[in-house]
Amino acid sequence: MEKIGFNLERVESLEDLLLELKRVGFSATALSKGYEIIQRMKEEKALTILTFTSNMVSSGLRELFAEVVKEKFVDLIITGAGSIEEDIMKTHKPFLLGSFNLSDSELHKRGINRIGDILVPNERYIWFEKFFTRFLEKIYKRTKIISPSDLIFELGKEVKDEKSILYWATKNNIPIFCPAITDGAIGLNLFIFKQDHRDFSIDVTGDMKKLANIVLTAEKTGAIILGGGFAKHHALGINLPRGGLDYTVYVSTAIEEDGSLSGARPREAVSWGKINQKAKFVSIFGDATIIFPLLIIPFLKKKK
Amino acid sequence: MEKIGFNLERVESLEDLLLELKRVGFSATALSKGYEIIQRMKEEKALTILTFTSNMVSSGLRELFAEVVKEKFVDLIITGAGSIEEDIMKTHKPFLLGSFNLSDSELHKRGINRIGDILVPNERYIWFEKFFTRFLEKIYKRTKIISPSDLIFELGKEVKDEKSILYWATKNNIPIFCPAITDGAIGLNLFIFKQDHRDFSIDVTGDMKKLANIVLTAEKTGAIILGGGFAKHHALGINLPRGGLDYTVYVSTAIEEDGSLSGARPREAVSWGKINQKAKFVSIFGDATIIFPLLIIPFLKKKK
Amino acid sequence: MEKIGFNLERVESLEDLLLELKRVGFSATALSKGYEIIQRMKEEKALTILTFTSNMVSSGLRELFAEVVKEKFVDLIITGAGSIEEDIMKTHKPFLLGSFNLSDSELHKRGINRIGDILVPNERYIWFEKFFTRFLEKIYKRTKIISPSDLIFELGKEVKDEKSILYWATKNNIPIFCPAITDGAIGLNLFIFKQDHRDFSIDVTGDMKKLANIVLTAEKTGAIILGGGFAKHHALGINLPRGGLDYTVYVSTAIEEDGSLSGARPREAVSWGKINQKAKFVSIFGDATIIFPLLIIPFLKKKK
Amino acid sequence: MEKIGFNLERVESLEDLLLELKRVGFSATALSKGYEIIQRMKEEKALTILTFTSNMVSSGLRELFAEVVKEKFVDLIITGAGSIEEDIMKTHKPFLLGSFNLSDSELHKRGINRIGDILVPNERYIWFEKFFTRFLEKIYKRTKIISPSDLIFELGKEVKDEKSILYWATKNNIPIFCPAITDGAIGLNLFIFKQDHRDFSIDVTGDMKKLANIVLTAEKTGAIILGGGFAKHHALGINLPRGGLDYTVYVSTAIEEDGSLSGARPREAVSWGKINQKAKFVSIFGDATIIFPLLIIPFLKKKK
Repeated sequence: MEKIGFNLERVESLEDLLLELKRVGFSATALSKGYEIIQRMKEEKALTILTFTSNMVSSGLRELFAEVVKEKFVDLIITGAGSIEEDIMKTHKPFLLGSFNLSDSELHKRGINRIGDILVPNERYIWFEKFFTRFLEKIYKRTKIISPSDLIFELGKEVKDEKSILYWATKNNIPIFCPAITDGAIGLNLFIFKQDHRDFSIDVTGDMKKLANIVLTAEKTGAIILGGGFAKHHALGINLPRGGLDYTVYVSTAIEEDGSLSGARPREAVSWGKINQKAKFVSIFGDATIIFPLLIIPFLKKKK
Repeated sequence: MEKIGFNLERVESLEDLLLELKRVGFSATALSKGYEIIQRMKEEKALTILTFTSNMVSSGLRELFAEVVKEKFVDLIITGAGSIEEDIMKTHKPFLLGSFNLSDSELHKRGINRIGDILVPNERYIWFEKFFTRFLEKIYKRTKIISPSDLIFELGKEVKDEKSILYWATKNNIPIFCPAITDGAIGLNLFIFKQDHRDFSIDVTGDMKKLANIVLTAEKTGAIILGGGFAKHHALGINLPRGGLDYTVYVSTAIEEDGSLSGARPREAVSWGKINQKAKFVSIFGDATIIFPLLIIPFLKKKK
Repeated sequence: MEKIGFNLERVESLEDLLLELKRVGFSATALSKGYEIIQRMKEEKALTILTFTSNMVSSGLRELFAEVVKEKFVDLIITGAGSIEEDIMKTHKPFLLGSFNLSDSELHKRGINRIGDILVPNERYIWFEKFFTRFLEKIYKRTKIISPSDLIFELGKEVKDEKSILYWATKNNIPIFCPAITDGAIGLNLFIFKQDHRDFSIDVTGDMKKLANIVLTAEKTGAIILGGGFAKHHALGINLPRGGLDYTVYVSTAIEEDGSLSGARPREAVSWGKINQKAKFVSIFGDATIIFPLLIIPFLKKKK
Repeated sequence: MEKIGFNLERVESLEDLLLELKRVGFSATALSKGYEIIQRMKEEKALTILTFTSNMVSSGLRELFAEVVKEKFVDLIITGAGSIEEDIMKTHKPFLLGSFNLSDSELHKRGINRIGDILVPNERYIWFEKFFTRFLEKIYKRTKIISPSDLIFELGKEVKDEKSILYWATKNNIPIFCPAITDGAIGLNLFIFKQDHRDFSIDVTGDMKKLANIVLTAEKTGAIILGGGFAKHHALGINLPRGGLDYTVYVSTAIEEDGSLSGARPREAVSWGKINQKAKFVSIFGDATIIFPLLIIPFLKKKK
């Protein structure tokens, strides 16, 4: 059995740190195992699924996700509508660092929206509305019915920003799935657009085949699941028909006791066959804004 | 200023308890305020939105939700695909009480799926697949394109179970919105169904107008938001164009520090105008399986 | 196996509710099991240990704890120094209900201390300092060395308040253990007192025998452990030499993943022999300000 | 206002990473601020207080704490009894890496105690008992009454292990305070020892003066507070008479909503004057086993 005890002398690089944390116990060991599992996932050339929640694109992780897609480190993404619209807004102007403790009434008066300690002026949304409506007009000329992932692929053609997730996703043909595409500004804009374009529709069933084709034909599959929500559930669910994921890393701040899917540990997915019982998996307790950079930077630096 | 100190003598009923908890502080005071806010919400005849995550329908809360819909205590519901399919499965056979600590490999071999300490034999899913495919055939004869809430309304006609949420929702014409309708067994079944019915589609944009019409014409709106995810986000988002919710009660185990929408406190939604700055709101920390019965039973008992 | 599903018709009283919550799953089931375990604990006449953290005495739970001690529902208490001093302060004047969001700089200027949403004017501490110094002078005349539990017993003689924990503890001879007695205003006052009374000392080792005698001679032992910290650890530790607790209910908001004793589930204590492997135990996720009243009120109402 | 957006190109070293995380938001920004605050704390030569809970010494952080003390990076430590005894046990033999999911009944039969995923064979405790009893015999010849910090100082003379916290604390004359010294194996051993040495006592009031002298004479004070419990409370409390801490970094997984001191944010301590209203402070949500190495390694590497 391995001995507990951190040895500072062994740590020169970030990768050294990740490996040495294994000898600490608790979440540090989980983080270290997560790093090893991703290593194996890549060595075994497993199809790599990345899921994240929209607030992570609000955060500065957006640029890291873009790097990950640029470097083709992942094969497909599942995320929320907010991720799509905010990635695009940021091609226009950045979000700003505020604080959790600002007066929300005051912010509201000034037309500034708060996401934790991140500030998004209304101007970003107004710009997006114009951008997106123009885009919809263009799409509408070509088709009256489209799936969310196809819509997102087309959106990626419209952005010219090397820091954008969508830019690289389209360029590298890495599909982004978003089963709840109307849950955001996109939805409100579609509501307005539809008043004059009644026959325009987004068919969510369209993506099931595309997603299934990719996942069910893969020899091995792995997932890096940041946070919970439907993005997590969707990544797990689509792996059920193929006998479950082979490699899985969860990063989460959610608790197990309330029975939520967001808080469920990988073990639970084994009962469903969503994670294979022989799979390598770990759940890392912590905020993805800290954990994800630690997990991924060593890989990105090696690629360069 | 009110004095702290619980007085046991004042407590005879559950409602007494809820009121007296105000004098305890911390989450107890939040719970008590939540009860008062719902009282005001109903007195003011505010349009009442209820959101919950799918695991709550896996749990025994399902029957309480059904009562709430039966009694027309809420005007619209937003929830996940799992809620829809599991409510229907339970019209067939119940879920069972297990434990968080069962062996998931063992359960998998026995064909039993675990959700926290709740067990769902595969048989329930197999039954649902047949039920749902038959239902889709029927719908397909009538229409090739349908919105999630219309699909759910039609599903409600098919169930004959007074403990079912969908049964009462259809009977009482209380719409259930589910922007991520493909995220569950429903999605996998649609994938199979679509192979022979390529022109069948579910148009998520279809529901935006319906939802907007209800919310934007209401004089006052209130929301009881159990857990997070897109259900919470959707309820908040649709209230933005009308100047925000007037009454809001969150019940959550999520933390604020990771910037997630699930963990965001009501205050944050004020900056967006999703909750009105003059609104009455509170966030109650705790598992909805305990908090929701406490909040709602006094109202349901009065109705009887 | 039991079926999941809440039946509102079965619920007339708070006790009915506790029993029916078992059929909900997740934390609701844990709460229901906790109630059953306490029932068994009392039926089997197990020595009953209650532990809580100081903030719970800051809260309105203080009066419920006093009831519990008055009714001799527990046999011994382990808690922090804050619990002792705040119970006494409240015999003078109550604490007040504020909000988590008040300006702390502003409060500081006004001489008001905040504990969550509870406010404690400095006046309470100034009064306590006088009270406690007078008390120490009195004790000093009788003895130069005293254990924490003896000190607390003597303090209980000085308070004349039927809502006080200490009042009833002394009256009913229910010992209160506090291994970290200097960690609070008591400690700062002792520091000043000692400048003129150098030979006065508080011997923490003195309480180990007293505590051991009670616990090790009991036929069966049970513990209701609210929150974590040394109070939890101490209750578990003293049960190790006797083969572990027979009944244990944890109420906690802490997570397991960081390896903290506060977050450790009962299962972990089984490996140590602090909880017997045949014991009945449960951990309830939630804030004690909500959970403890639910658990205890049915018992207190029956006693009356 | 600063812009959100992580720039991978700027990151070559761990220190670069810490600085760049500021531009991510949420916990990442908090971590980055924590690093900056510690930098200021050291530049301003503030008296540096470190507090941690015992489980962190069970973990591999123990060796990092020893480095920190060896390098005189901190001036005083406050922690629990478990930290003292486990640091000493590890001078004998290491703890071992297991898993959170081992069978605790099985472990109990095999005489192995579990702390999260860390395993401690009973042999460690048996060895400690002999060591500690021999030590007490030696102390008893010299004095009949001793304070916890003096006891710990003497213990440090007995250990010959450069990976030990106590070894370096005694060598570098860095005091370790432990107001709850009996809460652990130390307490059980003292209980037995006292049966034949009735006049031996540990006077907790003795440490108040020593602690106060150090803190109240410092020009500026800072604290790195890992986890909660009395260690956190004690560090805050002793700073009250001097007008509060000037620099404070919390690392915690606890929530604020239950009003616990462990979960209280730095803001709350401002109302008390425990943290100065002009202080620089931050709370980092996360497990100290990950966060503390990130915060401290850049400093330790520079010292070398």
